Amino acid sequence: MKASSTLVFVIGFLVVAVAFVYAVFLALWVKRQKNENLTIARIAELIRDGANTFLRKEYALLAAFAGVLAVLIFLFLPRPLWSEQGSLVENLTMALSFIAGTVFSAIAGKIGIMVSTRANARCAEAATEGIKPAFLIGFRGGAVMGLLVVGSCLLGVLGVLLITGNSSMLLGFSFGASSLALFAKAGGGIFTKTADVSADLAGKVELGIPEDDPRNPAVIADNVGDNVGDVAGMGADLFDSNIASMTAALVMASAIDGSALGVSSMMVIIYAALGLLSSIVGIYTAKIGDHGSPTKALNYSTYVTTGIFLVLTALATLLFDGFEWRVWGASTVGLFVGVIIGLATNYFTDDNAPIVKKVAHASKTGPAFTILSGISYGFLSVLPAMVGIAISAMAAYKLCEPLGPGYAMYGISMAAVGMLSIVGMIISNDAYGPIVDNARGLAEMGGLGEETIRVADELDSAGNTVKAVTKGFAIGAAGLTVISLLGAFMSEVNMAIAEMNVALAAAGEQLIEFLTGFDMLNPNVFFGMMVGAAIPAVFSAMLILGVDKNAQRMMAEIHRQFREILGLAEGKSGVQPDYNKCIDIATTGALKELIPAGLMAIVATLLVGFIGGVNAIGGFLMGNIVTGLLLALFMSNAGGIWDNSKKYIEAGNEGGKGSESHKAAVIGDTVGDPFKDTAGPSINTQITVVSLVASLLATLFLQFHLF
Amino acid sequence: MKASSTLVFVIGFLVVAVAFVYAVFLALWVKRQKNENLTIARIAELIRDGANTFLRKEYALLAAFAGVLAVLIFLFLPRPLWSEQGSLVENLTMALSFIAGTVFSAIAGKIGIMVSTRANARCAEAATEGIKPAFLIGFRGGAVMGLLVVGSCLLGVLGVLLITGNSSMLLGFSFGASSLALFAKAGGGIFTKTADVSADLAGKVELGIPEDDPRNPAVIADNVGDNVGDVAGMGADLFDSNIASMTAALVMASAIDGSALGVSSMMVIIYAALGLLSSIVGIYTAKIGDHGSPTKALNYSTYVTTGIFLVLTALATLLFDGFEWRVWGASTVGLFVGVIIGLATNYFTDDNAPIVKKVAHASKTGPAFTILSGISYGFLSVLPAMVGIAISAMAAYKLCEPLGPGYAMYGISMAAVGMLSIVGMIISNDAYGPIVDNARGLAEMGGLGEETIRVADELDSAGNTVKAVTKGFAIGAAGLTVISLLGAFMSEVNMAIAEMNVALAAAGEQLIEFLTGFDMLNPNVFFGMMVGAAIPAVFSAMLILGVDKNAQRMMAEIHRQFREILGLAEGKSGVQPDYNKCIDIATTGALKELIPAGLMAIVATLLVGFIGGVNAIGGFLMGNIVTGLLLALFMSNAGGIWDNSKKYIEAGNEGGKGSESHKAAVIGDTVGDPFKDTAGPSINTQITVVSLVASLLATLFLQFHLF
Repeated sequence: MKASSTLVFVIGFLVVAVAFVYAVFLALWVKRQKNENLTIARIAELIRDGANTFLRKEYALLAAFAGVLAVLIFLFLPRPLWSEQGSLVENLTMALSFIAGTVFSAIAGKIGIMVSTRANARCAEAATEGIKPAFLIGFRGGAVMGLLVVGSCLLGVLGVLLITGNSSMLLGFSFGASSLALFAKAGGGIFTKTADVSADLAGKVELGIPEDDPRNPAVIADNVGDNVGDVAGMGADLFDSNIASMTAALVMASAIDGSALGVSSMMVIIYAALGLLSSIVGIYTAKIGDHGSPTKALNYSTYVTTGIFLVLTALATLLFDGFEWRVWGASTVGLFVGVIIGLATNYFTDDNAPIVKKVAHASKTGPAFTILSGISYGFLSVLPAMVGIAISAMAAYKLCEPLGPGYAMYGISMAAVGMLSIVGMIISNDAYGPIVDNARGLAEMGGLGEETIRVADELDSAGNTVKAVTKGFAIGAAGLTVISLLGAFMSEVNMAIAEMNVALAAAGEQLIEFLTGFDMLNPNVFFGMMVGAAIPAVFSAMLILGVDKNAQRMMAEIHRQFREILGLAEGKSGVQPDYNKCIDIATTGALKELIPAGLMAIVATLLVGFIGGVNAIGGFLMGNIVTGLLLALFMSNAGGIWDNSKKYIEAGNEGGKGSESHKAAVIGDTVGDPFKDTAGPSINTQITVVSLVASLLATLFLQFHLF
Repeated sequence: MKASSTLVFVIGFLVVAVAFVYAVFLALWVKRQKNENLTIARIAELIRDGANTFLRKEYALLAAFAGVLAVLIFLFLPRPLWSEQGSLVENLTMALSFIAGTVFSAIAGKIGIMVSTRANARCAEAATEGIKPAFLIGFRGGAVMGLLVVGSCLLGVLGVLLITGNSSMLLGFSFGASSLALFAKAGGGIFTKTADVSADLAGKVELGIPEDDPRNPAVIADNVGDNVGDVAGMGADLFDSNIASMTAALVMASAIDGSALGVSSMMVIIYAALGLLSSIVGIYTAKIGDHGSPTKALNYSTYVTTGIFLVLTALATLLFDGFEWRVWGASTVGLFVGVIIGLATNYFTDDNAPIVKKVAHASKTGPAFTILSGISYGFLSVLPAMVGIAISAMAAYKLCEPLGPGYAMYGISMAAVGMLSIVGMIISNDAYGPIVDNARGLAEMGGLGEETIRVADELDSAGNTVKAVTKGFAIGAAGLTVISLLGAFMSEVNMAIAEMNVALAAAGEQLIEFLTGFDMLNPNVFFGMMVGAAIPAVFSAMLILGVDKNAQRMMAEIHRQFREILGLAEGKSGVQPDYNKCIDIATTGALKELIPAGLMAIVATLLVGFIGGVNAIGGFLMGNIVTGLLLALFMSNAGGIWDNSKKYIEAGNEGGKGSESHKAAVIGDTVGDPFKDTAGPSINTQITVVSLVASLLATLFLQFHLF
C-alpha cells in the first residue's frame, strides 16, 4: 500500500484524537474520586496554589524570553530578513513555529499539574481503602500528563508539516519546546531541590521534627517542588526529547526524499503515531489486584507497550511500500538497548541490588566514605549506558547504510524514535511518582494513620524502582537524539551551502565544498570539542550553586519564621507558618539562578560558531554530547544510589534510623538531591538547546566566522 | 649553521652530562648537611626503609609485568615475528627499548627517593636554624629528582635514536616509561591515600591524637606515602609525559623529513636539551634570604627557566638552518598557555583567593554543602584549562600549517614540548613538597619545638601554592601530548598502510586508502569515542574504590594494634606500634588494587581496536582524552579546593579548628584526598598508556577487526 501523506496524516490526527479523548476521560475519572477529608483537601489546595504560582511566574518570564527570541528569529532565521534569499513568510513561519513549540509544551505542563495536584489528595484518601484504588488514581493521574505530552508533540509536528511543508521549520518548533524545557526542567529542578534541602535541613536536622510536619514553613514548597520538578519539568523535558528526535529524523528524511512529505518522513510519523497508540494500550493495561505489586504492574505495562510497538511497526513495514525492514531493525535495536540500559541502571540504583548495599555499608565509616563510594559507583554506572548508546548507534548506522546515502544517520534517528516510542509510558510513570509522593505527605499531614502511610510508601517505592528502567530509555534516547541532531546540523549546513553555491555559480566564483563529516584532527573541530566538553560541567556547577544559594535564602526565611511566629515551634494549635513566603523565595530564586546557566550555554555556542565556523560547531556539539551524557548519567545514578542507600538504612539495616551510618547517608542524599533532580536531568535539555541553536544558525556560522 | 645530527647529539649528550653532574653535586651537598638528632635520624630511617620496601615490591611486580609484556612485544611488535615483514632485529630492539623505558624511569625514581628520604631529616634539623638553610635543603633534594628524570629522558631518547635510527622504536621506550608510571603513580597514589586517610581517621578523628603522633601505627606509612606518591610517582608520571611528548614530536618529525634524523627531529632534540639547560639554571637561582618568601623564590626560578628557554630557543632558531620561527611560535604559545592555566588553577585552589573561602564558608551549613560547593567549583575550574588547551592546539596548528603537510600536528606536539621545557623545575618543585612535608612530621615527632614546626609549615605551604602553577603546565602539556599522540597514531597507521600497499600492489590487488583524519560521524569513530569517554570514569572509580578497600584493611590493623599492644594508646614510654605491618598492608593492597584498573584500560583498547579497527581507536583515544582531561582537572582541583578550605578554617576562619565547619571541611578533605592524589593525576598516565598501546598495535588493528 502506498503511504500517501493524506493517509498518514489522517492516521496521525486520529491517534492524537484518541490520546486526547482518553486523557480527558482519565482526568474526569480522577476528579470524580472521593475527596472528602477537609484537612487534606485544604493542604492539597495549598500545594496546587503553590504550583500554580510557580508556573505563572515561570511562564511570565518565559513569555518575555520567548518574545525576545521570537523577534530575533523573525529577523534572522532561517536567513536574515534583509538578505537576498530572505523571505518574510518563511521567517514569520519560523517565529510562529517557535512560539507554538513553547505554547504546546506549556499547556501540556499546566494541565498535567492541574490533574496531578488533584490526584494526590484523592490518592491519599483511596489509600485508606487499600493499594488497588490508590494505585489506579496515582497512575491515571500521571497518565493524563503522558498522553497530553505525546499527543501534543505529534499534533505539533503534524501541524507544522501540514502548514509549512518544510521540515526545517520543525527546528523552530523544537527550539521552542527546548526553551520551555530549559526553564521547566532546570528552573523546576532548582525549585524542588531548594525546597527539599531546606525542608530537610531545617526540619529533620535542626529541629528534629518528622518529614512532612505541617509546622515546617517549607513543607508545602517541598510538595509543590515534586509537582513542578517531576510533573511539569519532566514532562517538558520529554516533550523536548520527543520533538527533537522526530525533528532530527524528519530533517534527514527530507534530505533523503528531497521533500518533507516523502516516504521516509511518513515512516517517522507512522512510527511516532504507533508509539503513542501502544502507550495508550499500555496505560489501559496498568491495573493491580487487591494485594498486587505496583512495581510489577508498572513494569508489565511498559513491556506491553514495547511489545505492541514492535508488532505494529512490523505490520506497518509489511503494509506500506517503501517502509524498510532495516529501519524497523534500527528502531528495534533502539528499544532493546533502551531496556538493557534500564536494567543496568536498575542494578546500580535499586536497593535490593548489591551496589546500594555497599554504599550503605561504607556509610558506617563516615560520610566521606558515603560520598567516595557513591561517586565511584556513579562513575562505574556510566559504562553500560555509554557502551549501549555506542552499540545502538553503530548497529543502526550499519543496518541502514546499505539503503543509500543519508540513510545511515537517519537510521540512528529512527533508533532514537524507537526508544522514545514508549515515551507516553515513561511520562506516566514519572508523573505517578510525585502524585504518590504527595499522597504520602498528605496522609501524614492529614493524620490518616500508619497503614495508609505504609500503602503510600509502597506506591512511592514502586515509582522509584520503575523510574530506573524508564530513565534508561530517556537517557539512551537523548544520546541517540543528539547524535541525530548533529546529523541534522550537517544537513542544514549542506542545504545552506547548496543555496550559496547557486549564487556563487551565477557569479562565476569558486564553489564551497559540502561537509562530509567532522574530522577530529581538524583544529577547528578540536577547538570546538574541547570547549563543548567543558560546557556541561560548567552548566551543572551553575545549577548546583544556584540550589545552594537559593537554599541559603530559604533557610534564613525558615529561621525567621520560627523566631518571629510565636507558638510555631511548639506546635500550638491554630498557629500556621507562612507557606507562601517559602514558595515565593523558591520560585524567584530558581528563575534567577537558572538564567545565567542557560545564557552561558547559548553564548558559548555563538562564540564557538563565530570563531571557528561550522566545523568548530560540529566539534562543539560532539564534545558537549560526550561529556554531557557522561555527567548526566553519573549525576543521576550517583544521586539515585545515595537516595536508596539512605532508604535502605532507614529500613533498619547498617544501624538503622538515627545511627551514625544514617547521618552519613543523609549527607550523601543531600549531595545527591541536586545531582539527580537538578543538574543531571537538565543536561539533556542543555544539549538539545545547544544543538538546535547550532542547526538554526548554521547559515550564519557558515558565512561569518573568524578562523 | 647546519643542524647536523652529530652536532645535535653532542649538544644533547653534553647537556645530559651537565644535568647528571649537577644532580650528583646536589645529592652530595644534601648528604653533607647536619643530621645529628638521633630521634629524627631513626624515624627518617623508618621512612626510608618503608619507601624502599614499597619500591622493592613495586619493582618486583613491575618486573614480572614488564617481562610478560616484553615477550609479547618481541613476538608481535612492530609486526608479528612470523609475518612476512617480521624482523627479529626490529622486534628485539622494540622489546629492549621497552625495557630501557621501564629501567630508566625506575632508576630515576629510586635515586630520587634515596635523596628525598635523606633530605627530609636534614631539612627538619636545618629548620631549627631558620628558613634559609631549610629551604635550600628541601629544594635541592627535590632538584636531584628533577635533574635525573629529565636527564635520563633525554639520554634515553638520544640513545634509542642513535642506536636504532628509527623513531617508531621510541614508542616502545615511551610505553615502558608509561607502564612504570602507571604502577608508580596509580600504585603510589593508592598507597599514599590509604595511609593518609587511615592515619587521619584513626588518629585525629577516633583517638583525638595530633597529626604525626608517633603512637599512631600508620604515621610512618603516611610519611612513606608522601615520598612514594609525590617523589617517585610524580617523577615517573612526568618522565612519562616528557618522553611521550618527545616521542610524538619525533614520530611526526620523522614522517615530515622522511628520516628519523632530519632537521625537524633535530629541532625536537635541541628544544628538549635547551629546556633541560634552562631548568638547570632555574634550579641554580632558587635561593632565599633569611626572611625571604619560599613561594616567591620558587615562582621566580620557574619564570627564570621559562624566560631562558624562550631566549635560547630563539637563538637556536636564528642559528640553525631549517629551524622554523613558526615552530618557535608554537612552542612559545604552549609556554604562555601553560602559565595562564597555572594562574587559573591558582585562582581556584589558592586559599587567599575567593573560591576556597566560599567553600570554607559553605562548610558552616554542613558537610553536604562542603561537598556540593567543592564539586561545583571543581566543575567550573575545568573551563580555563580546557579552553586554554583548545586555543593553544588551534594556534599551534594554524601557525605551523603553512610550513607544509604534517607540520600542523607537529606544531601541536612542539607546543607540548614547549610547555614541558620547564619539566625539570616542575619535578623539583613537586619533590620539594614531600621533603618539607616529611620535615614537618619529623620536627613534630622529634620534638624540635613550635618555631621549627612553624618554619616547616611555611615551607610546606609554599610547596602547595607553587604546585598549582606547575600543575597547570603538567596538565596542559599532557593535553597537548595526547593530541599529538593521536597524530602519531595516524602516522603509524599510514606507515603500515604504505607497507601493506606495497604488497597489495605487487599482488595487483586494490590498495588501502590512507587515513586523512577521523570523522566523528563515522559510526566506528563514534562507537570508539563513546567507549573511550567512559574509560577515565571507570578507571577513577576503580582507583578510588581501591583506596577505600585498602583503607578499610589498614583501619582494621590499626584497631588491632591499639587493642593488642598494651600501653600504646596511653603513650607509655618504650612502647612502639608495629609501623612495618601498616606499610606492608598499604603496599600489598595498593599493588593489588591497581592491576585491575590498568588492565581494564588496556583490555578496553584491545576490544575497541579489534571490534572497530583503526577508526574506532581514533575515536576511542579522542573520547578518552576529552573526558580524561575533564575528570583529571575536576578531581585535582576539587581536591585542592577542599584541602585548602580545611587549612583556611584551621587558620582560625569560619569557626576555626574543632568547630562544626572544621568537621565538615575535614570530610571534604577526606573526599578530596583520593581525588587529587590518586585518581586525578593517574588519569594522565592512563591516557598515555592507552595512546601508546594504540600506536604500537596500529598495524594489528588495521589488519584484524570485526566491523
